[in-house]
Amino acid sequence: VVLTNGDVDHVAGLLTLRERHAFTLFALAPVHALLAQNPIFGVLDPARVRRVEVAPGARFAAAGLELELFPVPGKAPLYAEEAEPEIGGETGETAGVFVHGAGLAYVPGCAALTPPLLDRLHGAPVVLFDGTLYADDEMIRAGLGEKTGRRMGHIPIAGPGGSFAALAPLPGRKIYVHLNNTNPLLIEGSPERLRVEAAGFEVAHDGMEIAL
Amino acid sequence: VVLTNGDVDHVAGLLTLRERHAFTLFALAPVHALLAQNPIFGVLDPARVRRVEVAPGARFAAAGLELELFPVPGKAPLYAEEAEPEIGGETGETAGVFVHGAGLAYVPGCAALTPPLLDRLHGAPVVLFDGTLYADDEMIRAGLGEKTGRRMGHIPIAGPGGSFAALAPLPGRKIYVHLNNTNPLLIEGSPERLRVEAAGFEVAHDGMEIAL
Repeated sequence: VVLTNGDVDHVAGLLTLRERHAFTLFALAPVHALLAQNPIFGVLDPARVRRVEVAPGARFAAAGLELELFPVPGKAPLYAEEAEPEIGGETGETAGVFVHGAGLAYVPGCAALTPPLLDRLHGAPVVLFDGTLYADDEMIRAGLGEKTGRRMGHIPIAGPGGSFAALAPLPGRKIYVHLNNTNPLLIEGSPERLRVEAAGFEVAHDGMEIAL
Repeated sequence: VVLTNGDVDHVAGLLTLRERHAFTLFALAPVHALLAQNPIFGVLDPARVRRVEVAPGARFAAAGLELELFPVPGKAPLYAEEAEPEIGGETGETAGVFVHGAGLAYVPGCAALTPPLLDRLHGAPVVLFDGTLYADDEMIRAGLGEKTGRRMGHIPIAGPGGSFAALAPLPGRKIYVHLNNTNPLLIEGSPERLRVEAAGFEVAHDGMEIAL
């Protein structure tokens, strides 16, 4: 198990694996610290689950792959937010995974596409990237929330500074993942979906397999 | 939401309700304390989720029902266990719910059927009771664990001191709930299932409805 984030959607599944599953848990220090602050994750029996803290940018082996966790702009999980949370810091609370050899980059949460991050993604044959919201304000417009995507630490796809414009020039496969249920990319044939597909993007789906 | 226990199978669902659901959370003090010790439950926005500590044996109103939480013999959740956990204490870490008027008792976890608890269940027209394991050692015999049911804080159904013999004389409906996947009661037509059904017990199933 490789964690890129300590937020509920990334770590709650550990509770489902509980008690009798043996595995190794790789993450950067801030994510391990969040787990350590929550005694409920003590159901992961230390005799069966080894928690391995990896350093940012260091390569490690898991499941026959050579992996690397690299910090990307993000924020603390919702449950660990300060009153005025810092958004966009590269503290390791949000990370991407790079699969060396295959050159696959998995970045399910990302607050901003900085030039160094774009450079890195440019060299990857396969990029899976944060597609939480299509429009930064779509949850507000739908009456489902008070926050923009940026406030939640997710760069939107469309609009100025969005991921569509920044990632469209990438030469490899570009696959949006981590889509919120308000995202019109989930609707096959929607204008937004047709637009990103016309620019060479794919939208991840349940059961999707990627041959490395 | 009424919690009878702070163990993962009772509280992890709160994380699925997160962030935008408004509800009131009723529990005895020890269960609220466990939640408070885990910052991840901070995703339950205090502006939307009211945490109400109820006293053991006190009546409270929720969803049009008059309810009561009463301690039953149990133990601390696995993740909060001491090296030598006390099992069978009535500290409020494990509770039953009584629905007044209807006279329904819901006791999904219980380490022992004490005379006062049996007296109470005797007067209830509907009893839903801990059916975790049929035989105390069934997980050990199946090679799936090292613990007996009693060590996990669950009275077994069969055998000396089991719930079958103690509950069979109850005059109302008796329904086993909270069945582990090793429990042969889950198999329709199994000898164990036929035995409990012949004695007037029912086995709960997904989608079961009980008219009060």
